[in-house]
Amino acid sequence: MTLPSKENFSEWYHEVIQTAEIMDVRYPVKGLYVWFPFGFKIRQLVYSKLREIMDREHDEVYFPALIPETELGKEGEHIKGFEDEVYWITHGGLTPLDVKLALRPTSETAMYPMFRLWVRNHADLPLKVYQIVNTFRYETKHTRPLIRLREITSFKEAHTVHKDFEEAAEHVKKAIGFYKEFYDFLAIPYMVIRRPEWDKFPGAAYTIAFDTIMPDGRTLQIGTVHHLADNFARTFDIKYEAPNGEHYYAHQTCYGISERCIAALISVHGDDLGLVLPFEVAPVQIVIIPILYKGKEEAVMEACRKLAEKLKAFRVVLDEGEDRPGAKYYKWELKGVPIRFEIGPRDAEKGVAVVSFRDEKRKFEVPLDEVDEGKVLEWARELKQRLRNAAAERMAEKVKFVENTGEIEEWGGVVAVYLCSDEDCGHSVEEHGKSLLGWFEEVPDWLDLEPEGKCVVCGREGRLAALAKTY
Amino acid sequence: MTLPSKENFSEWYHEVIQTAEIMDVRYPVKGLYVWFPFGFKIRQLVYSKLREIMDREHDEVYFPALIPETELGKEGEHIKGFEDEVYWITHGGLTPLDVKLALRPTSETAMYPMFRLWVRNHADLPLKVYQIVNTFRYETKHTRPLIRLREITSFKEAHTVHKDFEEAAEHVKKAIGFYKEFYDFLAIPYMVIRRPEWDKFPGAAYTIAFDTIMPDGRTLQIGTVHHLADNFARTFDIKYEAPNGEHYYAHQTCYGISERCIAALISVHGDDLGLVLPFEVAPVQIVIIPILYKGKEEAVMEACRKLAEKLKAFRVVLDEGEDRPGAKYYKWELKGVPIRFEIGPRDAEKGVAVVSFRDEKRKFEVPLDEVDEGKVLEWARELKQRLRNAAAERMAEKVKFVENTGEIEEWGGVVAVYLCSDEDCGHSVEEHGKSLLGWFEEVPDWLDLEPEGKCVVCGREGRLAALAKTY
Repeated sequence: MTLPSKENFSEWYHEVIQTAEIMDVRYPVKGLYVWFPFGFKIRQLVYSKLREIMDREHDEVYFPALIPETELGKEGEHIKGFEDEVYWITHGGLTPLDVKLALRPTSETAMYPMFRLWVRNHADLPLKVYQIVNTFRYETKHTRPLIRLREITSFKEAHTVHKDFEEAAEHVKKAIGFYKEFYDFLAIPYMVIRRPEWDKFPGAAYTIAFDTIMPDGRTLQIGTVHHLADNFARTFDIKYEAPNGEHYYAHQTCYGISERCIAALISVHGDDLGLVLPFEVAPVQIVIIPILYKGKEEAVMEACRKLAEKLKAFRVVLDEGEDRPGAKYYKWELKGVPIRFEIGPRDAEKGVAVVSFRDEKRKFEVPLDEVDEGKVLEWARELKQRLRNAAAERMAEKVKFVENTGEIEEWGGVVAVYLCSDEDCGHSVEEHGKSLLGWFEEVPDWLDLEPEGKCVVCGREGRLAALAKTY
Repeated sequence: MTLPSKENFSEWYHEVIQTAEIMDVRYPVKGLYVWFPFGFKIRQLVYSKLREIMDREHDEVYFPALIPETELGKEGEHIKGFEDEVYWITHGGLTPLDVKLALRPTSETAMYPMFRLWVRNHADLPLKVYQIVNTFRYETKHTRPLIRLREITSFKEAHTVHKDFEEAAEHVKKAIGFYKEFYDFLAIPYMVIRRPEWDKFPGAAYTIAFDTIMPDGRTLQIGTVHHLADNFARTFDIKYEAPNGEHYYAHQTCYGISERCIAALISVHGDDLGLVLPFEVAPVQIVIIPILYKGKEEAVMEACRKLAEKLKAFRVVLDEGEDRPGAKYYKWELKGVPIRFEIGPRDAEKGVAVVSFRDEKRKFEVPLDEVDEGKVLEWARELKQRLRNAAAERMAEKVKFVENTGEIEEWGGVVAVYLCSDEDCGHSVEEHGKSLLGWFEEVPDWLDLEPEGKCVVCGREGRLAALAKTY
């Protein structure tokens, strides 16, 4: 079976998720999917990095998945933002529950009644915790594995509490830094964008999002950072005693990344042959394929085994299966293995192997005694750099700068415009079939545009903004 | 604040869970608790070991938490066993759902419709997967953190598929071996017991359980292994093609461990001062406490820092806080830190430290240059051996062998009797205020009893059985 071309992105995505064994899409409920062992390994590798970054200055915790209606409803804006998509548990066995329970869509209202108890004194601040949990949304739109699901199985949500607005604002910048590091690690280019007032997180003072651009030109929100000011603190009565003896409401932030990071990983780097994975997150990092001819098997296998042994610090597969080499190439390409070695009888004799990298067409010969851990890590670094550059180049091609709102509609990808902060101008540019993602917090290095210019609607001072169809 | 004595086990447990910061019991829904950072670290350390054991021959996967009513209800026995305690989701937002969704109480009915698709041919067998997930039970009995909860946050469930009954039975033995290794690692003594017919897992051919004995003499089931025969395979149509071209129903097993393993860890080893943790699962493994006197601080701190540096391969805390040494001892004892060093001015001068272990009263002096990683690991091994022996001794004291059913009721702990396999005899011994746990698969080395004897009810050939009040 061959994959559809990646140019038909939607079909390619659906197919690669199933055939590369990321998720099984055949679960009998719409919007719910099963993580295959291979997909789960990618998830573990990707989330280990996220954990490593979070662990530097957050404590990992776990709060319940069930939130009583009474707590969920407390913050007016917040509940309005979620009420259409919350799953409600109404019965335990055959017994109707006294208080309905919501399956967490996100955990503010599970955590903050407890933060009230945890925060008493300025010495308790800042409080910084995170958890990686399943969250639930009753999605009525078209669902897609890893992108729009009814059970988000791996939502990393961090929540912090600070003494004032400024300290929380500083922390928002730090959180943006964490997420940059994470996406740089995955070689996924992103735009850091401040969402318009009307599209911020329900209950937040402001929201800054990470958007990446998918192969079809639509954007995918792959991370958000929210400054909550003291909105939730007032609702949940989170106060602390300052050194001066006065009591003040705390200021909070929260920020999250879901398994959309893996959707982006697959979509941004993949090609017509399947997955293309950075070395660090590949379940199989190196595959060694013996090219066997009758009577010469032993020398080839010995060279292969020696190489596998030498590289055992990595996740290496020596594919001794019955399939022909071509079938093996196909299989491991589909799975995104970054580095492939082939060794045939003449290679074994000469003490060389033929090397190829998943992202390139070329093959080259390398003396086996030059292959060691250091060499592999060097190749891995170069591979990542190539992936990042190629992805940024493809994304840049999907962004068009326009100086006239009439041009917004026809462009298939992201449209960049200058826009002032006036809400009317914002709504006005959204009348052209695309949503306003918001304003660039900083312009990425792969976009050759100035941060400031005249508003495309009214001509006043504006900043660079982005419009797109979104996932 | 001091803990209640462990002799009042129920109060001690409740209090230690909160004050040692395992879980916060103040969440506003009965039966739901919050993992504190410290408790979560214990969980991570304990479950890393479980993962390590599982990873040897299972693939980790993730199946959805939501199971449609239509699947959950397919296996008649199974649904009967769970119908009173399933949480039902009936609404998405304000919209009633077409098919009610159950929050998984366990995952057989989520997994097996997919296993039907995964298993086609004998080459697909054996299939062995596991997942660590949250599961839900609408508990109406008295709830307790880690023991009886409405959200079990860390259920490790493994599921395997085999070609026939015998292969599955062999795998049941293997699974018992995995769980023995796990509980030996935690130094928790257990009884491996075959449950009576009327107390097996709903849908299983037979169930073998791990029970440990709590300080109050009640038993806690801390793991179960089920042979499912082809009961579920017939319901979910899991068939494979054998080498002879015929199609057969597969045979299955499943086995699980929940966070009750952590309840046991706390309860079995803890004492009046708080937690007592084996070295490997202690979030803080070593604490170093400087004993400071005015003017001599520098030499003491330098010795402490040098020691901390030398032991940095471990999780070491050098407690430089303002508290007096006594308050520090108290705090770290509560948290179960296995090894404590104290260094005062005269110790620093002499180049020694005073060492004590969490499970012992004695203190002794050790030359600092004799303390290294090897020494610490030796102490850790000895500590674990002491914990295991002490726990087994305490448990043995709670088991009483009786030859007369009249004595069953009065004994506060576990009662051992010989019992034949006749169901009437089984029900008859249960009339004395205790449940029949079942028959010992093997008699633990800390119980000095023969495996076989005459049935306490009818006098026929019987095997050693256990009766207890259970959690």
